[in-house]
Amino acid sequence: MSSSFGRLYVVTTFGESHGPAVGVVVDGLPPGVPVTPEIVQHELDRRRPGQSSITTQRQEADRVEILSGVFEGVSLGTPIAMLVRNTDAKSRDYAALKDVFRPGHADYAYMQKYGVRDHRGGGRSSGRETVGRVAAGALAKTALQTIGVSIMGGTVRVKDVQAVRRDWAEVEKNPVRCPDAEIAPRMIEVIEAARADRDSVGGVVETVASGVPAGWGDPTMAKLDAMLGAAMLSIPATKGVEIGGGFAMCELHGSQTNDVFEGDRFLTNYSGGIAGGISNGAEVVVRVAVRPATSIGKPQRAATETGETRTIEIEGRHDPCICPRVVPVAESMLAITLMDAWLRQRALRGRDR
Amino acid sequence: MSSSFGRLYVVTTFGESHGPAVGVVVDGLPPGVPVTPEIVQHELDRRRPGQSSITTQRQEADRVEILSGVFEGVSLGTPIAMLVRNTDAKSRDYAALKDVFRPGHADYAYMQKYGVRDHRGGGRSSGRETVGRVAAGALAKTALQTIGVSIMGGTVRVKDVQAVRRDWAEVEKNPVRCPDAEIAPRMIEVIEAARADRDSVGGVVETVASGVPAGWGDPTMAKLDAMLGAAMLSIPATKGVEIGGGFAMCELHGSQTNDVFEGDRFLTNYSGGIAGGISNGAEVVVRVAVRPATSIGKPQRAATETGETRTIEIEGRHDPCICPRVVPVAESMLAITLMDAWLRQRALRGRDR
Amino acid sequence: MSSSFGRLYVVTTFGESHGPAVGVVVDGLPPGVPVTPEIVQHELDRRRPGQSSITTQRQEADRVEILSGVFEGVSLGTPIAMLVRNTDAKSRDYAALKDVFRPGHADYAYMQKYGVRDHRGGGRSSGRETVGRVAAGALAKTALQTIGVSIMGGTVRVKDVQAVRRDWAEVEKNPVRCPDAEIAPRMIEVIEAARADRDSVGGVVETVASGVPAGWGDPTMAKLDAMLGAAMLSIPATKGVEIGGGFAMCELHGSQTNDVFEGDRFLTNYSGGIAGGISNGAEVVVRVAVRPATSIGKPQRAATETGETRTIEIEGRHDPCICPRVVPVAESMLAITLMDAWLRQRALRGRDR
Amino acid sequence: MSSSFGRLYVVTTFGESHGPAVGVVVDGLPPGVPVTPEIVQHELDRRRPGQSSITTQRQEADRVEILSGVFEGVSLGTPIAMLVRNTDAKSRDYAALKDVFRPGHADYAYMQKYGVRDHRGGGRSSGRETVGRVAAGALAKTALQTIGVSIMGGTVRVKDVQAVRRDWAEVEKNPVRCPDAEIAPRMIEVIEAARADRDSVGGVVETVASGVPAGWGDPTMAKLDAMLGAAMLSIPATKGVEIGGGFAMCELHGSQTNDVFEGDRFLTNYSGGIAGGISNGAEVVVRVAVRPATSIGKPQRAATETGETRTIEIEGRHDPCICPRVVPVAESMLAITLMDAWLRQRALRGRDR
Repeated sequence: MSSSFGRLYVVTTFGESHGPAVGVVVDGLPPGVPVTPEIVQHELDRRRPGQSSITTQRQEADRVEILSGVFEGVSLGTPIAMLVRNTDAKSRDYAALKDVFRPGHADYAYMQKYGVRDHRGGGRSSGRETVGRVAAGALAKTALQTIGVSIMGGTVRVKDVQAVRRDWAEVEKNPVRCPDAEIAPRMIEVIEAARADRDSVGGVVETVASGVPAGWGDPTMAKLDAMLGAAMLSIPATKGVEIGGGFAMCELHGSQTNDVFEGDRFLTNYSGGIAGGISNGAEVVVRVAVRPATSIGKPQRAATETGETRTIEIEGRHDPCICPRVVPVAESMLAITLMDAWLRQRALRGRDR
Repeated sequence: MSSSFGRLYVVTTFGESHGPAVGVVVDGLPPGVPVTPEIVQHELDRRRPGQSSITTQRQEADRVEILSGVFEGVSLGTPIAMLVRNTDAKSRDYAALKDVFRPGHADYAYMQKYGVRDHRGGGRSSGRETVGRVAAGALAKTALQTIGVSIMGGTVRVKDVQAVRRDWAEVEKNPVRCPDAEIAPRMIEVIEAARADRDSVGGVVETVASGVPAGWGDPTMAKLDAMLGAAMLSIPATKGVEIGGGFAMCELHGSQTNDVFEGDRFLTNYSGGIAGGISNGAEVVVRVAVRPATSIGKPQRAATETGETRTIEIEGRHDPCICPRVVPVAESMLAITLMDAWLRQRALRGRDR
Repeated sequence: MSSSFGRLYVVTTFGESHGPAVGVVVDGLPPGVPVTPEIVQHELDRRRPGQSSITTQRQEADRVEILSGVFEGVSLGTPIAMLVRNTDAKSRDYAALKDVFRPGHADYAYMQKYGVRDHRGGGRSSGRETVGRVAAGALAKTALQTIGVSIMGGTVRVKDVQAVRRDWAEVEKNPVRCPDAEIAPRMIEVIEAARADRDSVGGVVETVASGVPAGWGDPTMAKLDAMLGAAMLSIPATKGVEIGGGFAMCELHGSQTNDVFEGDRFLTNYSGGIAGGISNGAEVVVRVAVRPATSIGKPQRAATETGETRTIEIEGRHDPCICPRVVPVAESMLAITLMDAWLRQRALRGRDR
Repeated sequence: MSSSFGRLYVVTTFGESHGPAVGVVVDGLPPGVPVTPEIVQHELDRRRPGQSSITTQRQEADRVEILSGVFEGVSLGTPIAMLVRNTDAKSRDYAALKDVFRPGHADYAYMQKYGVRDHRGGGRSSGRETVGRVAAGALAKTALQTIGVSIMGGTVRVKDVQAVRRDWAEVEKNPVRCPDAEIAPRMIEVIEAARADRDSVGGVVETVASGVPAGWGDPTMAKLDAMLGAAMLSIPATKGVEIGGGFAMCELHGSQTNDVFEGDRFLTNYSGGIAGGISNGAEVVVRVAVRPATSIGKPQRAATETGETRTIEIEGRHDPCICPRVVPVAESMLAITLMDAWLRQRALRGRDR
């Protein structure tokens, strides 16, 4: 029932993958922020299908149209509605699977929840819904940039191949969006092998925000960690999230993981830039676990609406690893979350910092 | 600014660790649910300090008082306020650290956020805030039980010692709350070693809900995964959360992790009971990464409010591993999250399932 | 910052009067409700300009496009986005007033709030924003009708001319939408006189819901009265709202205004169908005070952005009385409010009644 | 289901009239605001029973206890929980009416909504719930005062007796809280006459905020008018609200009611300080219609839970006119609403004005 994220920077997405359009309403962008179709299109182009050999070969232009909230190139402070028409909607690919619950997909859960569903391409559960998130994220990034907050992201793991370095300038130079130029080719190899096998692989996407002032995020229920947990786990195909040291901290002692502040900075960042739910001035670091894409060509057993089981092969052009396309989405959710935290802090103190 | 969790089952906690009281207002519990001080006290006793040799030796009775919303032993449908007085508040323990930002703690972030803070024992950032969560969770568990939903939880990892079995009946039989009776003693050893060293260790807490009907949780922004992500990462000292297969799925292929439904059940549960953000009828499985407790007796370097650095030793009676006490809190947050999802689904379909 | 109304039936409007489009996202309509462009268009046609001699002569077709949330003629339970393009946007009419704060309008307040504004036709403050409300209201009416709740509305007062009867079948038969066929011509006379004088008049719109079961609405902060107060006073140009007996009850005694239930019904309805914030099964009756339209052709003194005062005449085709066009908007807000209360009650009790 | 008001200054009340306590949690008060029991008690004393001959003779001390969110006399920025014990709870007065639905009361609606109810003194629907609002309002007033916003209120009408002058300094000098010293005695006469007749009378309470900067309030759904509509109609026994010119504007022309700004101020204030939902710098003026109190001693016909009708006399010590006691409540709701709007505007612009 809730397609909205955020309390002060409120992002509401809409749209099914094979309906007329997908889009978003962004309510809460302060007035005077530069907003142009180009700013949004730039980010959408990073998310769209068909970018490289290791992503789906579907061709969707995904042209954004801004419907409201902007006047003479800047935001008005009123809701900004943005629309992307669905053009490459080959519904016929899905007719054969109309009464099948695809394994790993949300088909069965949707049917149980709603009693009706748009079976074509996952409908609302499709990754296509993230178009609206990326559009909203583009505006959040632009606004955050005005106060010196930058958002980076990349694929830091594919199957058992892990990035060692974090050179964010490398990310857009390789198709897997890996911040480690040496490791990227090995990730690509793994992905190509999965595709050849009509299978898919999982991975980890890391996002980082630099320049976040200390003081953002609320204690208790609206901790910045908690908001990021919701943000990241609302992205399709994610099943884990960790902040800073994350799960690896379990193996350490408090004397190791207590970040010490000395001089003008923290010597370590196990907290991932967040202490007690509140930013502490260090880089905010969030990693998200991306499961292997559920749409695979390989034959699988599947239940049908009538209770039988049959073997299916999902036709279509699938992503063998969705990490490269999750990167701009995860960045967007980080930007959206920080935007909301920023505005909350402004409400509390009446100033930017 | 937000101390509330949930949209329909709204849990609002209040209180500082050394103020007059901590507590909670629960708004949205349906009418007719049994509510007694005993039901709540039972869960609070699982959370309170001083339960065993491996938790803090502080003695706090933590007696709950129910102030509203209950009449003749059942809920009225109106807000239920519950209160626990702070009795063992030894503020003098903290006077020495008044102007110090304890490493790993939220002291510095709070000061940056608010400009003022209650320095005594972490104030609002104290684990003591979770008293209200556990009280609210006790009511949620009771309500969920009426429709056959059960909540279990336990410590499944301490440092590098991992539980193999999940025998939930064992949990209350060992002080570390491990669901694997054979592994529990080894966990305790690790914790005792840390305490002897005036240090702390981290671990992983797992919670499971059985009996959750398919259809709970919303797509997109209010995915059940997302709500659980927020719920778990709002618990103090948590820095990671994963659902079902979680981070380990990164290493697998889609052909392995796509849960197949056959006969009347799923053959695997990589989804952790949630597909597309909606429960699919399998067990809901959530694990949370608990960092090593930040309060340690071992000497540490720490910054002060005036910008100097000095060596401190945090006096007091600390938890060398907070996993055993996080268990009832994580269970509570799972129950609270499911309660909210249940009521949302009732709103959508007008019936319980 | 908030363009959304409702908690479970969430209506978010967007759009400026002279931007590319106005529209709405409706999140929370249960699945299986009939949704077609015709259902929505029918209500939009009641709101659109150019319907009669006593409304503005602007011609705007206001064709609705449904972008999401519907499949094979019924709602999916996912967000329904609806769009109406702005076609008759004669921006040049407004160029002359670019730097003027029109009296009674929101121009000055917007400038103070945002620092920027779309000066053309009021931008976001234009009555044109209500297009989205009426579209959302059409869906709410359809859903409510499935359980026997009907929404009626009409103009019951224009200046000092008051309707005596409430014959709702008459409403669409006269251009002022008066439920009293004998009084309607006198209302029209008053409106025509104002128009001849390039002036405007105010009035009162009444809306009624029949068939509302007892039990909708929450006590205290989300009283049904309170939600209706917010709903109605969020409509442009309204400055008062009353429920049931309203302000007139001030003159009476409790022994007169205490509605007595006898047999199977209330003998009077001073409560307007709501007791303690909760529907009591009687008709829900809400009246809203509509101020004289602020756009008038008559010369007026007005301040400018640079602090001067000059005399202006607002060109264009204005409504001399906006009551007839407020009727479908007020009906929509009543339907939206009841829809939300219905879903809340379903959440509380797990059934429709 | 919702006992909370506000988005950034969130006020959540709890408690039944004859339960252990009533109270409130205030979440969102910025840090550094002076908070003492005395500040809150001062306002509670204006609301409590037994103040004068024309209010109920019940004696309740209504001593407030502050449980959290305050340290060394100032707010911490964390939730402030406040509690008032119920002491004069003569439940026996209500036993006789246990199975009766008192006319005008919410008894029947509660039973239909919840299926259970606390029949003693109205339970949650009692005016006693407003204790929490007044406590929250006291803090809001204190915070608003720091930026020069003052809240006034008084009884401006009782039955057909209307105040002419608005001399707010007079309000606390007469028991009816009338801002017109000459009119007050006539109001008192009317109230005394109603009491002698074991009946009650209605009236109108007006509240005014001066010093509100232009720019507070949002367009469309969160208009300041709309928020005030919700705030005022959430007060027990209110059935109407109007802003500025209100219902009386219906009789006028736009050329009369369009407030003209000239020099440095508006020449009239038909808008009640709000244009397009946004404050315009003029005084914010809100009036609320208070129905005759529903608790009267006079014999009345009433339905019972078993469907019969009988004649009842409600024992106890009732308010013959609740206007004097509504005044501090309405002031509080105005302060709470403005507080929320202030914080929203700070979020939008990053500064106080």
